Formats: sequence, structure tokens, C-alpha cells
Amino acid sequence: MAKHDSTLDLLFTALGDPTRRAILMRLAQGDASVSELAAPHDMALPSFVKHLGKLEQAGLITTTKAGRVRSCALSPDAFAPMDDWLSAQRAIWNSRLDRFDDYVSNLKRMRENETGPEN
Amino acid sequence: MAKHDSTLDLLFTALGDPTRRAILMRLAQGDASVSELAAPHDMALPSFVKHLGKLEQAGLITTTKAGRVRSCALSPDAFAPMDDWLSAQRAIWNSRLDRFDDYVSNLKRMRENETGPEN
Repeated sequence: MAKHDSTLDLLFTALGDPTRRAILMRLAQGDASVSELAAPHDMALPSFVKHLGKLEQAGLITTTKAGRVRSCALSPDAFAPMDDWLSAQRAIWNSRLDRFDDYVSNLKRMRENETGPEN
Repeated sequence: MAKHDSTLDLLFTALGDPTRRAILMRLAQGDASVSELAAPHDMALPSFVKHLGKLEQAGLITTTKAGRVRSCALSPDAFAPMDDWLSAQRAIWNSRLDRFDDYVSNLKRMRENETGPEN
């Protein structure tokens, strides 16, 4: 649980920044070198590389080095832990709505019984 | 865009903390007062209230005060901006996979033409 929690911490925190989300959008189109990724961003390279580090740490991207060029790619299962968490959250929410439905149905039935069947 | 960006910043950052995610899981089950929510967390109340503040600021929860009791509820459309962003990300990724499929199909067709039809 603690392990999984820290994965989600890193994942959501990595996504909480517009530069990092822009990088992910770019990488969804295809792999790119660090300098290609950095080009549209008005930012010093060391700051930009820190953003890449946070994405890599969160398991959202992978990087590989060939000679002097570092390439970045989106991780195929990048969003899986987040999807799992959201599904769990929705399951609880939906079962609550189902219970509310049951409650309303019961209430309706009780009222019908009070006023007697319509025959 | 900038407006939407800051909504996503707040949303993802709010989710990047285990206490705040636990609060959301609890609220998915039903509304609760601040003291009910705080009970399972080994944390000073002012720190806990700061977490609630971040969730409220991100639009994930709403709070209402009746007398001296503040009640918290999950916002029904809490995750909508995040879902939109994830859908956009996936649409780009899928169109890339489609392009890759086309590329492989073309390659296959070219090879078949090279070796001649099998009839």
C-alpha cells in the first residue's frame, strides 16, 4: 500500500505542471530527443531536464542515450496506476449511487403500500 | 488555455498526496463532517484542514457550514477536467498507433508486391 501510494504521489505530482503535461502530449505523437522536446519551451536546459527527471521518476517516460543524444519516449503503461485509482474511486461512488437508488425505490414502495395498491 | 492549465495544476497536485486521496475515497462513500474525516488521520487539525482547503480549491470537494459543523462532499464533476486531459492524451497516442498500423500494412503490401502475388 505504501509503495503503491508513493507511485501515485509521484504520478499525480508529475502531472501537476503545465510544462510536464506539454512534454507528455508531445511524446504521445512520437519519441523525441531532449533538445527537440526543449525547443518550444522558454526555459533554461537544466530546469527543463529536471522536469524530464520528474516524469521519468514517475514512470511516465523512459529515456535512452545513443552517443551524445538522449531520446525520450512515453511509457506504454504510464497511466495504469492512475486508472486503477480512479476506477476504485468510481466504484465506491457508484455503489453509493446504487444504495441511494435502493433507498428511493424502498421509499416509493412504502408510500404505495401506505396508500394501498391501485386495483 | 492558461485558465484550464491552472485548473489541471490544482487538480493533479491535489491528488498527489495520500491523505487527500484517502479523504476523496471516504467522501465517495458519503458526505462527512470535518471531524469525521479527520478521525482516521494522525495529524493536527490545522494541517488536516489545509488538505481540505487544497481539495476545495481544486474543485474536488465542496464544504458547507451548518451551525458549528462543516460538512464536506465530493464534487460530482470533480474529475471531469482530468478525464478531458487524459482523453486528449490518449487520442494523440491512438492516432499514432493507427499511423504505425498503416505503416506496417504498407510495408507488408510492398513486400507482397516484391515477391509477387501468390496465385
